[in-house]
Amino acid sequence: MRRSIVNAPEDLVAEALEGFVLSHPRQLALDDEHRFVSRREKAEGKVGLVSGGGSGHEPLHAGFVGTGMLDVAVAGAVFASPTALQVLEATKAADSGRGVVQIVKNYTGDVLNFRIAGEISGDDQVDTEIVLVDDDLATETEDGGGPGRRGTAATVIVEKVCGAAAEEGQDLAAVAALGRRVAASARTMSLALNAGTHPGDDEPQFTLEADEVELGVGIHGERAARRVPFTDADGLTDLLLDPLLKELGLTSGDEVLAIVNGLGGTYPLELNLVARRLHHRLRDAGITVGRSLVGSYVTSLDMHGISLTLMPLDEELARLWDAPVTTPALAW
Amino acid sequence: MRRSIVNAPEDLVAEALEGFVLSHPRQLALDDEHRFVSRREKAEGKVGLVSGGGSGHEPLHAGFVGTGMLDVAVAGAVFASPTALQVLEATKAADSGRGVVQIVKNYTGDVLNFRIAGEISGDDQVDTEIVLVDDDLATETEDGGGPGRRGTAATVIVEKVCGAAAEEGQDLAAVAALGRRVAASARTMSLALNAGTHPGDDEPQFTLEADEVELGVGIHGERAARRVPFTDADGLTDLLLDPLLKELGLTSGDEVLAIVNGLGGTYPLELNLVARRLHHRLRDAGITVGRSLVGSYVTSLDMHGISLTLMPLDEELARLWDAPVTTPALAW
Repeated sequence: MRRSIVNAPEDLVAEALEGFVLSHPRQLALDDEHRFVSRREKAEGKVGLVSGGGSGHEPLHAGFVGTGMLDVAVAGAVFASPTALQVLEATKAADSGRGVVQIVKNYTGDVLNFRIAGEISGDDQVDTEIVLVDDDLATETEDGGGPGRRGTAATVIVEKVCGAAAEEGQDLAAVAALGRRVAASARTMSLALNAGTHPGDDEPQFTLEADEVELGVGIHGERAARRVPFTDADGLTDLLLDPLLKELGLTSGDEVLAIVNGLGGTYPLELNLVARRLHHRLRDAGITVGRSLVGSYVTSLDMHGISLTLMPLDEELARLWDAPVTTPALAW
Repeated sequence: MRRSIVNAPEDLVAEALEGFVLSHPRQLALDDEHRFVSRREKAEGKVGLVSGGGSGHEPLHAGFVGTGMLDVAVAGAVFASPTALQVLEATKAADSGRGVVQIVKNYTGDVLNFRIAGEISGDDQVDTEIVLVDDDLATETEDGGGPGRRGTAATVIVEKVCGAAAEEGQDLAAVAALGRRVAASARTMSLALNAGTHPGDDEPQFTLEADEVELGVGIHGERAARRVPFTDADGLTDLLLDPLLKELGLTSGDEVLAIVNGLGGTYPLELNLVARRLHHRLRDAGITVGRSLVGSYVTSLDMHGISLTLMPLDEELARLWDAPVTTPALAW
C-alpha cells in the first residue's frame, strides 16, 4: 500500500504548481488559470520554447524552465494532456516576436492539442514549429504504422539543445531543425520492477511477480509488450543497452550522450550501478560516454524502474549541451 | 515487495561510488581503497572540507563535492559509519595546508570515527575542527542527556555555508564557527508513511497501518517516538512546522531558509504540496521564506516521507548560501 501526500486529489496539479513556483520566486512565474510556468523575466529577442504534457513526470517539464532551456511549460492533469487552449496561451506567452518551438512528446493527446494550438496561434501572428520527440525504441513498429514511438527521456536533450540554440540567437527554423536532429538520433529503452501509484490511490498501476521485469515500459504506467526474467543490476542494464547499441549502430570510436534516468522510485545507489555498467560496456566497445546525466528527470510518479537514453554526439551537439543552463532541475 | 537493482549486495557501495564518479569524470575522482570521492582538481590554499557517513542517504554526501561545497566525501556501508582509517585518509586528502573542517552528523559511530581520525591526523600535521550537525528536533531531550539530537538535512546548509566561506578564503576557525552557528540555529522535523527497503531485502524496515504516520523519524529506518493519525498534505506539513516554529521562536518579520526534503520515495508533486503549505503558513505569520530548497537531498533509501528544516536567515548566511556552487546535486 502507498498512501499519498495530497489534499483533494482534484486540486493536486494546481497546488503543486503553486508550491513549485513559490519555491522559485526569483526565477519563475505561474499562470494559474492556464496552468503554465514561465520565466519570471521574459526573454526578449529570441525564439521561444514551450513544452508540456501530463503531470506526474516531474521534474519534466516545469523543472526545465529557465535561462538556456524552456521559456514556458504547461501542465495537464496527471498523465493527461493539457488542453489546446492551455497550450495556445502558453505558446503566446513564450513568443517575443521570433516564433515559438513547441517540444511535444509523441502521445496522441499531446500531439493533437499542440497541433491545434499551433494552428490557432497563427491568428495571433505567432509562428510555431513542432518538434516531436519519439525516442522510445520499445514502441517502434516494423512498418512504422500506428501512433509511432512514444516520447520519453530524450525530451530533456531536445529541450536543452534547443534551449541553447535559441539563447544564442538561432532562428525558428534552425532551432526546430536542431530539435528534430536530436529526436531523430536519440533512442531510449526502459524497464520497471513496479509501476507507480496515482496520487490518492492505494495500489500501483501494476505489480509483477518476483521473477519478472517489465521491459519496454512507458511513463504512464502502461504495461510493456514483454516480460523478461528478473536479474541483477548489470543484467538489467544490458537488457536496455543491447537493443540501443544495435539500433543506433554504434561502433568503436563513436561518442555518445547518455541519460541514466530513474522513473521515480529508484534510488541513487541503484542508478549509479546502472551508470557503472553502462560505462564498462561502452568502454569495452570503444565507445566514449562524452556527456551524461544520472538522476530522476523524466518520471512516472514513483515507478521503480530505469530508462537509458543514448544519442550519438558530435561537436555541435556537445557545444549546445555544454552551454550554460539555469533551471530548477538542471544547472551548470 | 520491493526488489533492488543490485549486483552482489556486499559490493553495492563500492560499485555505486564507481558509477557515480564515472558519471562525473571532469569534476570528481575516487579513492576506491578508502571509498572517498574528491574534487578531480584539488583546491589549493583554502580550508578543506570533508564530510561523510553511512551510504543510503544520497545525494548526501558525495553529491555535494565540488567548487563551493565539499572537497571530499567518505562513504561507509549502508547506514554504517566509515571507519576511522577511511576518515583519516579522506581528511588528509582534503588538506592543502590550511586545515580541515570535518562536518559530522551526530551519530555515535560517525562522531567516534571522525574524532579518532581528527586526533590521528594531527600526527600528519593536519589541523582539524569538527562541526557536529544535530538538527533533529524530534530527538531533543529535556535534560540534554543521551546521544543528543540526530543530524539530518541541516547538513546540506552546513556544507554549503562552510563551503562558501572556505572558498572565499576564511580560516579554519572562522569556517568551523560558521558551521557551528548554522548547526546551532537550524532545526528539522521528519515524518514517514513507509520506511525504506535495504538493497537486497524484500520488505521495508517498517510498515504502518493506513491511519498512522510515524512522526519524528530519522534517516536510518528507526521508528519514531510517536505515531499520529494520517492526514492530508496540509495537515502533515503542519505536524512538522508547528514544533519548528515554536522551538525557533520565529515571529513576524523574521526571515528563514527552508529545506523541504524528500526521504527518497516521495515524488515531486508531493514535495511541492508541502512547499505550498509552508509558504502559506509562513506568509500568514509574517515570516519570509528568503531561500529554500525543495527536493530529495538527504534520503533514507526509498523511505516515503518528508523532512522540513528551518533556519533563521541573516545577511551573512544569505550571502554564503547564494555564493556560486558547482556540485552534482547542487549548482547555481
